[in-house]
Amino acid sequence: MRTAYHDRLDTMVEQLGHMTRMVASAMSKSNNALLDADLEVAERVIAADQQIDSVREELDNEVLSILALESPVAGELRLVVAVLRISATLERMGDLAVHIAKVARMRYPESAVPAELRGMILEMGQIAELVVQKAGSGLVARDGSLLDEIERDDDRMDALHRKLFTLLLDDDWDHGIEAAIDITLISRYYERFADHAVSLARRVAADF
Amino acid sequence: MRTAYHDRLDTMVEQLGHMTRMVASAMSKSNNALLDADLEVAERVIAADQQIDSVREELDNEVLSILALESPVAGELRLVVAVLRISATLERMGDLAVHIAKVARMRYPESAVPAELRGMILEMGQIAELVVQKAGSGLVARDGSLLDEIERDDDRMDALHRKLFTLLLDDDWDHGIEAAIDITLISRYYERFADHAVSLARRVAADF
Repeated sequence: MRTAYHDRLDTMVEQLGHMTRMVASAMSKSNNALLDADLEVAERVIAADQQIDSVREELDNEVLSILALESPVAGELRLVVAVLRISATLERMGDLAVHIAKVARMRYPESAVPAELRGMILEMGQIAELVVQKAGSGLVARDGSLLDEIERDDDRMDALHRKLFTLLLDDDWDHGIEAAIDITLISRYYERFADHAVSLARRVAADF
Repeated sequence: MRTAYHDRLDTMVEQLGHMTRMVASAMSKSNNALLDADLEVAERVIAADQQIDSVREELDNEVLSILALESPVAGELRLVVAVLRISATLERMGDLAVHIAKVARMRYPESAVPAELRGMILEMGQIAELVVQKAGSGLVARDGSLLDEIERDDDRMDALHRKLFTLLLDDDWDHGIEAAIDITLISRYYERFADHAVSLARRVAADF
């Protein structure tokens, strides 16, 4: 039998799915802002972040209310607590998309990405979009089976992260310190973003 | 009247205090490892991190058990949920101390920190030790009044973080790209560490 309580749980998971799509959209826009040196898109990501934070606040309040009023136990308790952790993870992923947008904004009208690194940064951005989409699909379907795939995507991200450093340290690097710092930070943001997607997917696999 | 339930809550907060001291110790050792290029100390920080992670796991299990068996409400529910969030924050702070130790290890027997930046990195390390100690004291005393002070410490950290970038970008910088990348990442780790201490202190002020 469906109850109002179960409807609340379902709605909460849907809201988390909504938050995941907001983060995916932010990351996609940040990638464009970075590669196209598009100030307007960068500003939109930065401005939209407070909407992500608002959804997190609503979700956290809903979790507290469910814990107080419904006293969930066993699997449902694990689900409710997992929602709390996943919303925190998603907020952090949104922040990382904002960090990338801010690098784009800081270097505008120049691009922060030297031409010969565009391919690699594009690939990191695509992996970032992919992992958050997969993590979101698994979450909404309450299906942890995408975890392995997301971990492999994360491995590819880590490999790109390491490879970028070797390029920065190569004698052929002729874009100076500023570009090296930008790329170091951008690469770190992408790498962390994928780590968070893995931790989200692990949580879904364990507790959903 | 004191009950077994209240004893459990108290013990949980004490455990969180214990975890905070472990993180403070990790950060203090990482600072030494980095500035003295001390491989042995770096290895100790890296090896000890799993103890921090274990305390987090124990705490998380205790939180789930309290939620399931005691059905806390109102202020006690907020406290219990806050413990969950703070343990996640502390685990992340421990990871950042490990990241700093790993930079020290990677550059051993050289130092990752050029001589003229030692003073600034030392100061960032001291602020990091300070904020985690203050956050831990406030937590154990269930006293949020240190928040303002911790936020001011964090402002100093942010100022040092920004100042480091201006030094890296200065025409006088003659330590090359590798040192610039190391300093960029180290500085970012310290800056994030202080951010986490602020978020921990905010949580204590709001929910303890």
